[in-house]
Amino acid sequence: MNYADSDNNYEYLNRITSPKDLDKVDDLAKLCAEIRHKILKVVSKNGGHLASNLGVTELTVALHKIFHEPEDKIIWDVSHQCYAHKMLTGRFNQIDTLRQENGISGFTNRKESQYDAFTEGHSSASISAALGLAYSKQIKKESGHVVAVIGDGALSGGLAYEGINNVGRLKRNFILVINDNKMSISKNVGAVARYLNAARIRPSYMKAKNALEKMLNKTPFGKKIKDVMKESKSAVKRVIYKDNMLSNMGFAYYGPVDGHNLDELQKAFATAKSLNKPVVVHVITEKGKGYKFAEKRPQNYHSVPAFDIATGEKNSKISGKTFSQEFGRAICELAEKNPKICAITAAMTEGTCLQEFRSNFKNRFFDVGIAEEHAVTFAGGLSAGGMIPVFAVYSTFLQRSYDQIMHDVAMQGLNMVLAVDRAGFVGEDGETHQGIFDVPFLNTIPGVKIFSPSYIGELAPMLKKCTESKGISVIRYPKGADAYKPAEFKYTGNDYDFYGEKDSNTLLITYGRIFSSVMAASERMKSIGKTSCVLKMNVIKPLNKELMSDVMKFDKIIFFEESVKSGSVSEKLGDMLIENGFGGKYQSVTAEDDFMSHATIKSQLKKCRLDTENIVRKLMFSI
Amino acid sequence: MNYADSDNNYEYLNRITSPKDLDKVDDLAKLCAEIRHKILKVVSKNGGHLASNLGVTELTVALHKIFHEPEDKIIWDVSHQCYAHKMLTGRFNQIDTLRQENGISGFTNRKESQYDAFTEGHSSASISAALGLAYSKQIKKESGHVVAVIGDGALSGGLAYEGINNVGRLKRNFILVINDNKMSISKNVGAVARYLNAARIRPSYMKAKNALEKMLNKTPFGKKIKDVMKESKSAVKRVIYKDNMLSNMGFAYYGPVDGHNLDELQKAFATAKSLNKPVVVHVITEKGKGYKFAEKRPQNYHSVPAFDIATGEKNSKISGKTFSQEFGRAICELAEKNPKICAITAAMTEGTCLQEFRSNFKNRFFDVGIAEEHAVTFAGGLSAGGMIPVFAVYSTFLQRSYDQIMHDVAMQGLNMVLAVDRAGFVGEDGETHQGIFDVPFLNTIPGVKIFSPSYIGELAPMLKKCTESKGISVIRYPKGADAYKPAEFKYTGNDYDFYGEKDSNTLLITYGRIFSSVMAASERMKSIGKTSCVLKMNVIKPLNKELMSDVMKFDKIIFFEESVKSGSVSEKLGDMLIENGFGGKYQSVTAEDDFMSHATIKSQLKKCRLDTENIVRKLMFSI
Repeated sequence: MNYADSDNNYEYLNRITSPKDLDKVDDLAKLCAEIRHKILKVVSKNGGHLASNLGVTELTVALHKIFHEPEDKIIWDVSHQCYAHKMLTGRFNQIDTLRQENGISGFTNRKESQYDAFTEGHSSASISAALGLAYSKQIKKESGHVVAVIGDGALSGGLAYEGINNVGRLKRNFILVINDNKMSISKNVGAVARYLNAARIRPSYMKAKNALEKMLNKTPFGKKIKDVMKESKSAVKRVIYKDNMLSNMGFAYYGPVDGHNLDELQKAFATAKSLNKPVVVHVITEKGKGYKFAEKRPQNYHSVPAFDIATGEKNSKISGKTFSQEFGRAICELAEKNPKICAITAAMTEGTCLQEFRSNFKNRFFDVGIAEEHAVTFAGGLSAGGMIPVFAVYSTFLQRSYDQIMHDVAMQGLNMVLAVDRAGFVGEDGETHQGIFDVPFLNTIPGVKIFSPSYIGELAPMLKKCTESKGISVIRYPKGADAYKPAEFKYTGNDYDFYGEKDSNTLLITYGRIFSSVMAASERMKSIGKTSCVLKMNVIKPLNKELMSDVMKFDKIIFFEESVKSGSVSEKLGDMLIENGFGGKYQSVTAEDDFMSHATIKSQLKKCRLDTENIVRKLMFSI
Repeated sequence: MNYADSDNNYEYLNRITSPKDLDKVDDLAKLCAEIRHKILKVVSKNGGHLASNLGVTELTVALHKIFHEPEDKIIWDVSHQCYAHKMLTGRFNQIDTLRQENGISGFTNRKESQYDAFTEGHSSASISAALGLAYSKQIKKESGHVVAVIGDGALSGGLAYEGINNVGRLKRNFILVINDNKMSISKNVGAVARYLNAARIRPSYMKAKNALEKMLNKTPFGKKIKDVMKESKSAVKRVIYKDNMLSNMGFAYYGPVDGHNLDELQKAFATAKSLNKPVVVHVITEKGKGYKFAEKRPQNYHSVPAFDIATGEKNSKISGKTFSQEFGRAICELAEKNPKICAITAAMTEGTCLQEFRSNFKNRFFDVGIAEEHAVTFAGGLSAGGMIPVFAVYSTFLQRSYDQIMHDVAMQGLNMVLAVDRAGFVGEDGETHQGIFDVPFLNTIPGVKIFSPSYIGELAPMLKKCTESKGISVIRYPKGADAYKPAEFKYTGNDYDFYGEKDSNTLLITYGRIFSSVMAASERMKSIGKTSCVLKMNVIKPLNKELMSDVMKFDKIIFFEESVKSGSVSEKLGDMLIENGFGGKYQSVTAEDDFMSHATIKSQLKKCRLDTENIVRKLMFSI
């Protein structure tokens, strides 16, 4: 097939309206080719996860051949690899809307389809969720199989381990498919990776075991050896025959299986299905399979913006430097001068732009795997040892470390910098990835200081302050690049700055990237003679004491904030104002206390009335 | 020794002012007897953790003989087993103040002593923290060893696994002591327990392996077998010789060691210390060792109030039924009628009073180990399968599930009941265990409904409502029993109720157990002619819409809340009042945004001015 082909050329895909239709497909390999073709076309246009989806094409087809949703349940861990699954479960006709507003999600979503057994987006949760579904079936005496599909990278998360640790007692079929592509989002690390490596060479072990058995049978001592084995309560037997980590954990083991061989896959799944106990099917796949650029450099094609299929070149919509890139540069500059600075990432070296740090400061760089809890407690240990740990992490994933930030760092008075990337709306990744909760949950932790740059130029000096501060310092910055910057903007190093008309009776308060929209709106209002003053917060926690007396001079205050309302800065300020006896009017405009689906960031801001147009409209009625 | 003996009879303990003094002790066994004697005396008087401390006496002495803090670092996981450690590290003269206000903490605490390398209180964090300390030493090229001591129960936590997964790469000495007492706080569960069981029978395996080797050497095929092993890239060799979970994970393994044999322990630690790589020392101890009642029923002597040493009987200060007991009764009553109700605990069956549920509804009871993250995601899976999961958990440990509550249940619109025990101040366990953050962090999660009973009689009907609600319903209740109950109190089933003088211009708002103190204060004020109305909130999230208009009729509002301020209900209400144009006075009295040390609950409430006396004083100035 040629990428100029229209979708009408799909011999099979066009006819699949539910997984049952797979039975009518006489050439599954051709179907897989069509799926890959369509994945490339959609992702090259809409952006999304590419390499992982190309890698699981055969795996997905084979799963749906052997298991029958919705009676059976397939839980996709993280689920960024669900595109083929969506095409086979009645959503081929919507696949062009992938990740677009009102279109289908880039992740499995319970609200979207009965074939999406669980909403996934954060790593390592599939096993626990699947176990809950399996026990429900057991309690209700319901038939049907439960399958969790998890990548080798996601196995580095503690939640996956807690799940595995609890599966072992189940007395019914439970299938754990390990999709082993030898890497998580960044390079795979740690003991689990080593373990899977060992399992990959299992065929040679099996060969050796067979040879050993044959020889034992031939030797005069063979019987005696077997007696020793018996005598030792099967300890030796266990060790020789099946003592590996997963069988220790109560699973039968099947594998490794070639993840691009449809026959092998179907055979493996059929066998696994027939067992009345937990079983692991270890599948080896190649990330980016079938697209040469992605095969060669899969980490570059994990999550991509729109790109040109022919060249692999990205049609980036982002013009100019991103906040993440500036962080990557600035942290190196600081580490050069300060040998105490360490950088930590949870399998997000590329996403957080730590590649240069990794190269230049190898002994102070830690990719801990998808293990945000460990990342923070480990940072606490580094700090107790006198270092300055900087954990670069997406806002949505930092949620996972809430207890560790509280208990293992804040309570002990240790130092840590959190570089919180993807703060605020993230656009097309949607509800599982929004960064609209970090301000509320960090607000609840005693002693945390939070910096919020509006422009890239503020990031480096604020990050420097963070690394020089005692306790926990956070710097949070959005996805993307600088927006509109008013002429009067300058970086001052203050906790807050005033812009616009200081004598106005109306004060607009804000922070972060939407300072840009608030300023644009304020300027537009000024052009029609309605003035306002704008307070840009640079430090949003703790609230500077002078700030209170400064803002109480105004008659009307409107706070614009890119965060859910509950626990937000505007909520805290509102309470402080009333407890301090403020007699004027106070209002806030924030995201609602709810989850926000996929769309462009622009559209998400607009929905919350945080775009320039809506702010102008608000001011028309208020000033 | 006799328990009437005074402390002056301690031949060794009295002379130990730092671990160095251990070198002067010529009879370590006698020292251990003295330590046990003192542990029993202190815990029987002050309450605290008993069985675990009795179990690690020899382990602690041996560690301090071989390792030299503060150059070496010993991290005690959870650290409720640190009493002997404290006595040997300069705090014997303060041990009578254990867990008392201004006395020493029942956990290790960085602020208390240079010998407490890390503050611990939540399980499974020690390995990550120790790894941070080890890498600090590596980066700074500092000498000294790092030891993490972790119980077998704590190994069921995902954070421990994330830590282990990251230790393997370390190229220096790192010692993981597994204190294997065959149980965590409740009975040990899951695959790790099975694994340790397997390791416990290792001696028989070692014997068999030796026999096998001898035979191989004797057979004519011996050499050939060894060739096969070589050929298979050491796969067979690895499997036969050292393929167990921990060696897969990069550790050398030493054990099992008798945890009450001082010589064996010292030998093991000295050997471990000599290796230039991560090493596990697997120590078998007996919980409660040396005290017959605790040896027999260790789970009953995990965390105890004051008791009589001679009889083992508790001198409980709590008179009457506790909230926890009522929860245990009520959940059984509900489960009897509703076959969908499941109960989940994270190794806290006894603490949350689920013993009866465990007996009566075996197939719907899940003790998942110390794995709060899994508990919630698993609950999500159960709910997706049509069940009604009830997770009973202490407030402070629920922090660990923040992301899972948000992502794996709330976002998906699934149902779950959280029975949050130990909400509010917890007294002597101190800062690592306070339940003063759950309201703020649950407030940030969309769609959560929170019930807050003030009296035990309200628990059952509220819990029933929780099990009948859609989405996430929380019922939070304090440690202990009913406090003062005003004559006019009655359970109504409303979201909120008014008490006292409805015509007063002053409104006191509160919820939970301190309703008792607020009512007592309001009544006392009435007796001197100053009236107030009291609003008791039964549902604290979401705020009932009518509540707003009802409270805005008053001129003065004071909110009394047993929670930190940031993210609290009073903060939210303050903001709502100002945004709704409330023109009166509003104040709140809450805990400060800080951690709170050990003391009695009464004293902790008093410090926050939430006791009756302080509320009266406040009202004197306000009404």
